[in-house]
Amino acid sequence: MNKTRRDFVKNSAILGATLSTFGVSAVFGASDKNGGFDPKNANVKCKGWAAFDSSGVFKPWEFERRPVGDDDILIDIKYASICHSDIHTIKGDWGEQIYPQIPGHEIVGLVSQVGKNVKNFKVGDRVGVGCMVDNKNIALLQKDATTGGLGEQYSNDTIFTYGFSDKRESTGITQGGYSDKIVINAHFAVHIPQNLDFKLAAPLLCAGVTTFSPLMKYKIKKGDKVGVSGIGGLGHMAVKLAVKMGAEVTAFTTSESKKADILSWGAKEVVVVSEPSRDLARFKGVLDYHISTIPVQFDVAPYVSSVKPFGTFTLVGMGENFSITQSNLALSASRVNFTSSLIGDMKETQDVINFCADNKIYPNVEIINASDITNAYKKVQNKEARYRYVIDSASI
Amino acid sequence: MNKTRRDFVKNSAILGATLSTFGVSAVFGASDKNGGFDPKNANVKCKGWAAFDSSGVFKPWEFERRPVGDDDILIDIKYASICHSDIHTIKGDWGEQIYPQIPGHEIVGLVSQVGKNVKNFKVGDRVGVGCMVDNKNIALLQKDATTGGLGEQYSNDTIFTYGFSDKRESTGITQGGYSDKIVINAHFAVHIPQNLDFKLAAPLLCAGVTTFSPLMKYKIKKGDKVGVSGIGGLGHMAVKLAVKMGAEVTAFTTSESKKADILSWGAKEVVVVSEPSRDLARFKGVLDYHISTIPVQFDVAPYVSSVKPFGTFTLVGMGENFSITQSNLALSASRVNFTSSLIGDMKETQDVINFCADNKIYPNVEIINASDITNAYKKVQNKEARYRYVIDSASI
Repeated sequence: MNKTRRDFVKNSAILGATLSTFGVSAVFGASDKNGGFDPKNANVKCKGWAAFDSSGVFKPWEFERRPVGDDDILIDIKYASICHSDIHTIKGDWGEQIYPQIPGHEIVGLVSQVGKNVKNFKVGDRVGVGCMVDNKNIALLQKDATTGGLGEQYSNDTIFTYGFSDKRESTGITQGGYSDKIVINAHFAVHIPQNLDFKLAAPLLCAGVTTFSPLMKYKIKKGDKVGVSGIGGLGHMAVKLAVKMGAEVTAFTTSESKKADILSWGAKEVVVVSEPSRDLARFKGVLDYHISTIPVQFDVAPYVSSVKPFGTFTLVGMGENFSITQSNLALSASRVNFTSSLIGDMKETQDVINFCADNKIYPNVEIINASDITNAYKKVQNKEARYRYVIDSASI
Repeated sequence: MNKTRRDFVKNSAILGATLSTFGVSAVFGASDKNGGFDPKNANVKCKGWAAFDSSGVFKPWEFERRPVGDDDILIDIKYASICHSDIHTIKGDWGEQIYPQIPGHEIVGLVSQVGKNVKNFKVGDRVGVGCMVDNKNIALLQKDATTGGLGEQYSNDTIFTYGFSDKRESTGITQGGYSDKIVINAHFAVHIPQNLDFKLAAPLLCAGVTTFSPLMKYKIKKGDKVGVSGIGGLGHMAVKLAVKMGAEVTAFTTSESKKADILSWGAKEVVVVSEPSRDLARFKGVLDYHISTIPVQFDVAPYVSSVKPFGTFTLVGMGENFSITQSNLALSASRVNFTSSLIGDMKETQDVINFCADNKIYPNVEIINASDITNAYKKVQNKEARYRYVIDSASI
């Protein structure tokens, strides 16, 4: 079965057939169009570490990527970090997958080849790649005609970085960053400034922008009381970013052992949560804003209710099947605006890179070899990551 | 088992134990306090039509209500209308019930007795009663010290009109409006102006205020594109109210036969929905605001997505177990503020009564006798109501 995550979304009984109409739903493999991509060059031979099934075991794999087209750049990957989304995808939590598959959408490297139409990048540039690598109607996209101003991630024509049907790829799907090279449309690359270490830049491409985008959209400002729940890769960036924006940050974590770290990042308070309805009770109606990065299904009510009436709660963590069940009675009692946010657009991606470089905001990372990926997946799921595993591509 | 709707909410596995902390959760029967109520008078002998089980069959019943205390008024009920909430409650959709039980929280009548502390009402006044009849800490409530300004319906000490544990009642629970008389704390009565027909006033006490409150909270104004989905008792009021506020209203209904009615109320367009993802597709990101009164669980995604990014969607219909399941991926794609709203406060209840009287906005009603209640329940569930059944209390 040629099923991708997006196919799943389209076909899921839970979601109904609605997403195909309402965004985040492109099924790329269904298209026969070449969309202006230049196939004249040869495929690019690559190495990577792939999952061959849903078990979470990674092994070396040689494969080919699509040729470098006129609008594309080829990148020599230096580092790629492990996002919980990678794990959800490979496990099949978001739908049946095609294997072998290489995840990874927090990628940094050096440009090694540019297509003839590419203007913003040259060979040798330091670049980053996040969750998106191309778009079927890039001309329309660049006129902002296809997303209603919401950003590339909401275009039905956007191609996501891995596991996404793409007939130009010999493997049938896009392959991600646990690899030595990647071919992407240059629109989806950002510049990494010289003063930002590659190792520290990688996690910004998803964890950074996914938390930065809603913090900016909801205009977090000095003195705002901001809650961050789930202090992993995304959450630890949310704490650091919100602190830098001047917010009074309360972090909610299930890991007592993270407390000292979180306080060192400038959080005002850390609440170690074991029983949410009890442990969050004293925050009822207290916070101006709350962002949850919790990457599994959970009872949102106590978290939502921590926000002041008519304030906003944003869910960026995506659990199994993207499904969220809540009580509309509890939601009505909180009077909170319940919102969800998906990564960020390319401008926001460049913005968060620059914001972090300028303000010396860095993720906490642990550098690993490709042979450690399998073990790292287990550690992330056991909440042992502190806070992002970054794969050194030299080890691939 | 002495279980009320609120007990259920408290104990439900879906909702967790969160509501007891986060509002809308008082379990009145657990209290032994008399709360300042004066028990010196005798119980009030009443007649009503009660449900004796969850079947939806109503039969005459004689019972007693609590005595008229110093802060209370006794009302001779003239009309009471049938709300879908009555049906949900009696069926047990919102939790196990105590029977016999008389539902009904859209009540109008004449004051026949007043307690010595009552200042705003006198014998003979035309009054209305909605979903609330008392509060354990009325002094605190009146200082607005217990609801954070959100309204009486969010006080943990508020007593709802029927099926709510109250030890002062000989039947153990409050009994609603399908009856000849009712005793309530005067704080929870509103004045019905002389120029508003009793028959037309009754549905405003729940259907009216439940839709009026969010339309006001979210500041609907001239020219706003407003969606209303579910055109029953609540929805038909939402259409009329929003039209009067100057909105361009699009109504979404599953009943082709309601189309002409809805257009006659001033809606700009009526969409007959049989397949939501298809039928609402052309509204993607179009509306400024959307209120759903759909009283069952449904796939909210196509409805939510009809709202412009960063606009608001409000759910006032409450389905089985108050539970709502949605895709946070779809929600993220819409960028919509998802909100829920519970009835309205007493000020809003008086406001909607006055607004409708002043602007000649009237519900569409069909007057029935008490012996028709059983049949009316079936018709409401079969979407045959046009649009509110109002029980003539003279028939009780």
